[in-house]
Amino acid sequence: MPKVVIVGGGFVGLNAAKGLGNVSNLEVTLVDRANHHLFQPLLYQVAMAGLSPAEIAAPIRSLLARYRNIRVLWGEVQSVDLAGRRVIADFGELTYDYLILACGARHAYFGHDDWEEFAPGLKNLEQATEIRRRVLTAYEEAERTKDPAHRKRYLTFVVVGGGPTGVELAGAIGEMSRFTLAKDFRHIDAAQARVVLLEAGPRILPTFDEQLAARAVRDLEHLGVQVWTQSAVTKIDAHGVEIGAERLAAATVLWAAGVTASPLGKQAGLEVDRQGRVIVEPDLSIPGRLNVFVAGDQALFTHQTGQPLPGTAPVAMQQGRYLARLIRRELAGKPRVPFRFADKGQMATIGRSRAVLEIGKLKLSGFVAWLVWLVVHIYYLTGFKNRLLVVMQWAWSYLSFRRGARLIVSKEWRLPGPASPTATQPAAGWSSPEPISTQAKP
Amino acid sequence: MPKVVIVGGGFVGLNAAKGLGNVSNLEVTLVDRANHHLFQPLLYQVAMAGLSPAEIAAPIRSLLARYRNIRVLWGEVQSVDLAGRRVIADFGELTYDYLILACGARHAYFGHDDWEEFAPGLKNLEQATEIRRRVLTAYEEAERTKDPAHRKRYLTFVVVGGGPTGVELAGAIGEMSRFTLAKDFRHIDAAQARVVLLEAGPRILPTFDEQLAARAVRDLEHLGVQVWTQSAVTKIDAHGVEIGAERLAAATVLWAAGVTASPLGKQAGLEVDRQGRVIVEPDLSIPGRLNVFVAGDQALFTHQTGQPLPGTAPVAMQQGRYLARLIRRELAGKPRVPFRFADKGQMATIGRSRAVLEIGKLKLSGFVAWLVWLVVHIYYLTGFKNRLLVVMQWAWSYLSFRRGARLIVSKEWRLPGPASPTATQPAAGWSSPEPISTQAKP
Repeated sequence: MPKVVIVGGGFVGLNAAKGLGNVSNLEVTLVDRANHHLFQPLLYQVAMAGLSPAEIAAPIRSLLARYRNIRVLWGEVQSVDLAGRRVIADFGELTYDYLILACGARHAYFGHDDWEEFAPGLKNLEQATEIRRRVLTAYEEAERTKDPAHRKRYLTFVVVGGGPTGVELAGAIGEMSRFTLAKDFRHIDAAQARVVLLEAGPRILPTFDEQLAARAVRDLEHLGVQVWTQSAVTKIDAHGVEIGAERLAAATVLWAAGVTASPLGKQAGLEVDRQGRVIVEPDLSIPGRLNVFVAGDQALFTHQTGQPLPGTAPVAMQQGRYLARLIRRELAGKPRVPFRFADKGQMATIGRSRAVLEIGKLKLSGFVAWLVWLVVHIYYLTGFKNRLLVVMQWAWSYLSFRRGARLIVSKEWRLPGPASPTATQPAAGWSSPEPISTQAKP
Repeated sequence: MPKVVIVGGGFVGLNAAKGLGNVSNLEVTLVDRANHHLFQPLLYQVAMAGLSPAEIAAPIRSLLARYRNIRVLWGEVQSVDLAGRRVIADFGELTYDYLILACGARHAYFGHDDWEEFAPGLKNLEQATEIRRRVLTAYEEAERTKDPAHRKRYLTFVVVGGGPTGVELAGAIGEMSRFTLAKDFRHIDAAQARVVLLEAGPRILPTFDEQLAARAVRDLEHLGVQVWTQSAVTKIDAHGVEIGAERLAAATVLWAAGVTASPLGKQAGLEVDRQGRVIVEPDLSIPGRLNVFVAGDQALFTHQTGQPLPGTAPVAMQQGRYLARLIRRELAGKPRVPFRFADKGQMATIGRSRAVLEIGKLKLSGFVAWLVWLVVHIYYLTGFKNRLLVVMQWAWSYLSFRRGARLIVSKEWRLPGPASPTATQPAAGWSSPEPISTQAKP
């Protein structure tokens, strides 16, 4: 019986598995380091205390429970033996007839890995809840400090990277400051918080139409966000950021720039580009190995337009479904066809009532664009229950301007400086040891 | 203008603050180490992946935002200067005219603080999510291990303490094993999980009627829980527990026995009993200081029945409201009256469709009792949105036997033993450094 091994339970892995579910005479094993599938486009909502983790994530084995030919194993694949047709994971080995690598991407700090401690990225739930804690804690610290310089630093938030993720984070912090938290504090005016979005290039949202990007800038400014272009960060430390000769004192810095693929591709001896993405053929296989595929953010696919496909959710979803179809067809003796991406466009939200959206020649902005964004994301959200909960949570939050999940949980994070001596231990890092990247998602 | 300082944002603090909200010419400051108020009776639901943290917790400053005379400060009170009428917190000092200490209780391990690492208690969200992680991880480890002895240990869960909290935790794990996870695994039969509830005394639920307690035992056994009475734990380590000469190999041990009050009472030089509870007068004040009150789990009140009032939510709520009324009356020149607790009874659930309930002479069990429990807890859950979300979450979970929040997030926890070499770091502890206790809650 042919065996398919899928490494990664994200958009590629989940869709590939579903497409192979209950196919007769086929055994599928999916391995992931996390027990849950994450709907990454909404991860910034968790980071900004708008949604709870369980509203955008579901256990992988639950999602695949109905397919008796699929088993899910929680673990980490550490290397691939191409000749021996097996993957080596922390719990043991798995042999395969077909292998799909879809381990995604992580943040990169342009060689400055020491920045990671001070500027978390947004790629998984641990980081999202860490960011949430830092942002909420900053307001609490600002409320109780008597030092005006400290207060100013606590009320300064810097987001590095002007792609969709950075725009969404900055807009959400601006909106939180101006609306959600407005009445909750007595010593600070949360609306006085400074939110600065730093982009190294000449404009934010470089992949979008210029006018849409300009509209986004105006919408951000309405939420109190300052957009600094041509501002490449040269240093990040506990006190803030440096942009060349300039310095911003900020308690909270978030990283939404710089991306690199999972190191597994390189570890497996595959040919990768500078960002670690594995170069794949038109059918997503690796050169010389028809039964090994790489897809999603981990792959570099240039055969359609000459340019790499972006690391976005629709690309990953389509590639996952394509691979399932390819394997089913091949088992039935049919030939392969190349992968073709059907471009569904790109979107970015600014706060809870504005967005910019571009699909081919269609360009939308404002509230209409946000409604379209809402419908699309709810549609794709995995699982009916999640959809219902998310709609309810947002409806509540939208009508009342309250953010639903404003909890500070777990490790505290404190700035060095006039230390607040507390019994709980300050910790400035988080659990994942590798640098992680953020990839622009619609 | 008189100042009231409230230390602790639990049931006492929140209700006291609300009772003093918008009272003219009164300034209230509430301090808590967490930014959120926690509905503790439902904490075990978070631990058992039935609810998300945000469904049972809300930011304190949100709950009190509408009262302009109340400010909320996030911080930790470290000592009390009774003569100088001030509390010293990590962020500075606060002077008071009235002081309410309501810091709650924490776990105690009968002198064996080293047990805490292996047997977390359930008193806050950090512990609840840690327990959730350990329980879910145990199933994942069982699924992927090839060693039968390991599998057995991973599928063995021990709950120490036969009060309501222990009963609720054990019943929930039993139910999760038999129903929720039944179809999700391929190598294990989750229903074969062993759940053992250890009680040192002659029976579980010692404060309940004997017949109700016997009914609870039968309901637990239907969920696959073994109830061991007269079984005092003598040792807990990474491999399991010892009960005298017997030994149980268990990957997951949960602590629901042993309680001690917050150390602040003793630190402030107040008279405390052996469990650290502050001895209070009939009006909840401390001897010799009419303007300093201690209430909730942190207080020892024996004036009504000769026995201490239990550390439960209704006691705390009523005391909080009482104190607000006392202060309001006193400011209007009226005399004090002693505190009288209106006993609302006690309850404990067993799984999601059974409970035992005792109010005075009324004794209920089975599904009817569970319905009453449901209505009562939803009614008292803070905030309309939370209520609606919780009802929806439970309705979904009840109808589909799925548990809504089965996410493994954050630090991994691994047993020592044939170590799984992974890149992420194992961590056997969690963030709070002080031992925490669990207090029987209805």
